Amino acid sequence: MSEETKQQQKLSLTLKTAKGTKDWADKDMVIRQHIFQTLTNIFQKHGAITIDTPVFELKEILQGKYGEDSKLIYDLKDQGGELCSLRYDLTVPFARFVAMNNLDKIKRYHIAKVYRRDQPAMTKGRMREFYQCDFDVAGSYDAMIPDSEVMSILVDGLTSLGINDFKIKLNHRKILDGIFQIAGVKDEDIRKISSAVDKLDKAPWEDVKKEITVEKGQTEEVAEIIGKYVKLSGSLADVIAVLEKDEGILSNEKAMEGLADIKLLKEYVEAMQIDNFISFDLSLARGLDYYTGLIYEAVTAASAPPSDAQEKKEQALKKKDSKKAKKNGTSNDDDASAYVGVGSIAAGGRYDNLVAMFSEATGKKSAPQIPCVGVSFGVERIFSIIKSRSNLDKIASTSTQVYVMAFGGGADWNGLTGDRLKILKKLWDNGIEAEHMYKGKVNPRKQFDAAEKSGAKIAVILGKEEYLQEGKLRIKKLGPEYADDDGELVAAEDFVSLVQFKLEEM
Amino acid sequence: MSEETKQQQKLSLTLKTAKGTKDWADKDMVIRQHIFQTLTNIFQKHGAITIDTPVFELKEILQGKYGEDSKLIYDLKDQGGELCSLRYDLTVPFARFVAMNNLDKIKRYHIAKVYRRDQPAMTKGRMREFYQCDFDVAGSYDAMIPDSEVMSILVDGLTSLGINDFKIKLNHRKILDGIFQIAGVKDEDIRKISSAVDKLDKAPWEDVKKEITVEKGQTEEVAEIIGKYVKLSGSLADVIAVLEKDEGILSNEKAMEGLADIKLLKEYVEAMQIDNFISFDLSLARGLDYYTGLIYEAVTAASAPPSDAQEKKEQALKKKDSKKAKKNGTSNDDDASAYVGVGSIAAGGRYDNLVAMFSEATGKKSAPQIPCVGVSFGVERIFSIIKSRSNLDKIASTSTQVYVMAFGGGADWNGLTGDRLKILKKLWDNGIEAEHMYKGKVNPRKQFDAAEKSGAKIAVILGKEEYLQEGKLRIKKLGPEYADDDGELVAAEDFVSLVQFKLEEM
Repeated sequence: MSEETKQQQKLSLTLKTAKGTKDWADKDMVIRQHIFQTLTNIFQKHGAITIDTPVFELKEILQGKYGEDSKLIYDLKDQGGELCSLRYDLTVPFARFVAMNNLDKIKRYHIAKVYRRDQPAMTKGRMREFYQCDFDVAGSYDAMIPDSEVMSILVDGLTSLGINDFKIKLNHRKILDGIFQIAGVKDEDIRKISSAVDKLDKAPWEDVKKEITVEKGQTEEVAEIIGKYVKLSGSLADVIAVLEKDEGILSNEKAMEGLADIKLLKEYVEAMQIDNFISFDLSLARGLDYYTGLIYEAVTAASAPPSDAQEKKEQALKKKDSKKAKKNGTSNDDDASAYVGVGSIAAGGRYDNLVAMFSEATGKKSAPQIPCVGVSFGVERIFSIIKSRSNLDKIASTSTQVYVMAFGGGADWNGLTGDRLKILKKLWDNGIEAEHMYKGKVNPRKQFDAAEKSGAKIAVILGKEEYLQEGKLRIKKLGPEYADDDGELVAAEDFVSLVQFKLEEM
Repeated sequence: MSEETKQQQKLSLTLKTAKGTKDWADKDMVIRQHIFQTLTNIFQKHGAITIDTPVFELKEILQGKYGEDSKLIYDLKDQGGELCSLRYDLTVPFARFVAMNNLDKIKRYHIAKVYRRDQPAMTKGRMREFYQCDFDVAGSYDAMIPDSEVMSILVDGLTSLGINDFKIKLNHRKILDGIFQIAGVKDEDIRKISSAVDKLDKAPWEDVKKEITVEKGQTEEVAEIIGKYVKLSGSLADVIAVLEKDEGILSNEKAMEGLADIKLLKEYVEAMQIDNFISFDLSLARGLDYYTGLIYEAVTAASAPPSDAQEKKEQALKKKDSKKAKKNGTSNDDDASAYVGVGSIAAGGRYDNLVAMFSEATGKKSAPQIPCVGVSFGVERIFSIIKSRSNLDKIASTSTQVYVMAFGGGADWNGLTGDRLKILKKLWDNGIEAEHMYKGKVNPRKQFDAAEKSGAKIAVILGKEEYLQEGKLRIKKLGPEYADDDGELVAAEDFVSLVQFKLEEM
């Protein structure tokens, strides 16, 4: 085999996007832009500014922030100079930004891509490159006031996008930590027990209990006490009522602090009438290390894995193994879509120590604590829900209004390209979306077909005699309902106002 | 020194963004968003759809596309799986997209970040991470029709952003290649001689001649003939007139093909009255490998390096060397801003073979050629020009309209937080930008100060007696001109319409 052939065969495998990433185009882009615009409007309604941070950060900035998930971080190759990694979320870069600029308060939104080397499930919106839309409030404020505003943004964001069938699972890290203390878990074991509890949305209690006892070395008794609490969920009022009577909670300082927050939050979300969306769920733990207070995630029916997930997962793994045996290549086929759910569609929480962690790393002795709370919308996951509910036929991916055509014939006919461009330029200069065929001489049928495809509503026609001899343009409405309409002739100098008039009529 | 202290000292060096990248915030973001929106409107006016491709591509996709600049590509670390690189521009991913989806035509814009491991000059908008705004037309069309539309977009883009003092340097690869043939350069040497000629905007002819002869092995005679042509520049009409009488050009098939294109282009840009922006400049070569026809770049006075550039560059290099001797670390100090110009602020050209190159790599025997032409706006460079011309005091980075306050006191005063949230929620639900202080009890002075900082125009005040006893809100205009205005009382149930009315008045 020649070198060249080898090269071609090698390339023939790779005309694709990298695993877990995809191109976006046409109507998908329109839907996604609509999501961005809707959320941006809401974020601005709350007085936020926007920032943009680089796609990659110094590797050290990201280290020690994501617990078990740190293995999913993409690193850049060492090509000399600094060691960098692609950002994993927008929260850590935000905290770095606040610390670096010595800000004592900021309210900001940020819509940008983040990167995770995770198992993709493309049709469920679980990708390796994906957008987050984040809103965060940094600053020392009174308890639960910014937190409840963030709850309101979460609800407003989803309902404005037409998603009403969601619930916000909510918990408090201090209550959760209190429960682990009550159960007798040592402080240094709390995070790993917490991450076991976090799996309760995907696995039954028996599996989680096994992880707590067998894998993570807690006694049967400890697990039973944890189990008693983490099975609790319901409305804020109901769960607060249970906890307020619980001996364990009443005797635990941390849990009581958390409970006081939740009671205040209840007052505020009731004032805003968004309490009906909230489920106080003591099993919610969230994986990330940096949360210190309220934690929450919004879920829909599509969030959970399908009922036959386990079976499908085993099938997929078997298939993958047999493929590997045949051919040792990577493939986009290993996609988990069949056996995972969309997951949470928005999530967040309070992280009061992250900014100070950065400030202290600069060597400052008394770096101020800058408490933060925020929410992150998972655009791709929301997208996959909205797309499945959309009438795609009604979405236009271009906004063309006018199509410029030239009709004529004979030996001297040149298609009037220069004149078409002159006409087009006038339309563009007046802010009107206009196209023509990028050809000199074309027959009318083809031009009408192209106009129809473009979605244009009006044709501006340069007829050979009409234009060259009379200096006139024909303005005609397009679409089957105007098939019999021959349009109107107008002097070429002032055709724009007639076009504008007809566009407004339609 | 303990491990912990070492770790802290290490971190204390690195609370920064990676070299050549920066954070964007506040008014800078407002200016940049304005650039994006202006260009997006123009692109849409020409019937383009938008696409989004991943930030990283398979390494092989980018290989062999950028000539000498390939060394500037960022690679991702090999963490198992595919080898990937950060995209260097948006053109190659676009061509990959067209080939991969077997498109025979598309008109698209794409606004996104690209990555180059180049020497940064931050204040000149030359960065390692920067935005490009690209518009491209792919498809087989008649000569110079899409090309002249792209010229019109270039002019419209810059003038719409308030930049009128630019010129578009324009040339044609076929004319340039013809010149090299006329001079006697062998075909395989053409690209490297072309890249020497490309330096004529930064270096005098004598230096370039030396590179052609001494470094790149051409004879004195060859260099002299090249020199005669590449010194030609002026209006399309003037340079066409010279070339049409030139024996060399008349006898070279390639050059005559290029000249025919330029003559057609002249007709079209004159029809659109944008010819006055264009300078036909035979020294323009552009570095990238993939151009095959028309090439162009827009430059302003800020594009060129300062007159004392050489001197400043030597100073900077000396300083850098002495620093390196002292401390072997990377630093953001090595920035070339003092001795480089902004460079071209928009550029592009025709690349007719790039898509086919990808299609053929898939193993297709008769992959169709999909000719392309496009333009890329350099946002950061345009930004640095616009910012220097802007009145920053007049730019607001938030859009807050209303500030909600509570005034009261006494032992039973609680700040009415829940009631404030109820009022705020009504404003938000009506699409009104509104904020309050995230505190329970605050004195009126602080609330007015915060309202002023937020830029709000209207205060909605919950006065202790007015609100609790009479159920009324006070609506007051803000700003020094309304200092004596006590505002108006309105029933709390229907305060929104009064707020809307007052906002419209202001």
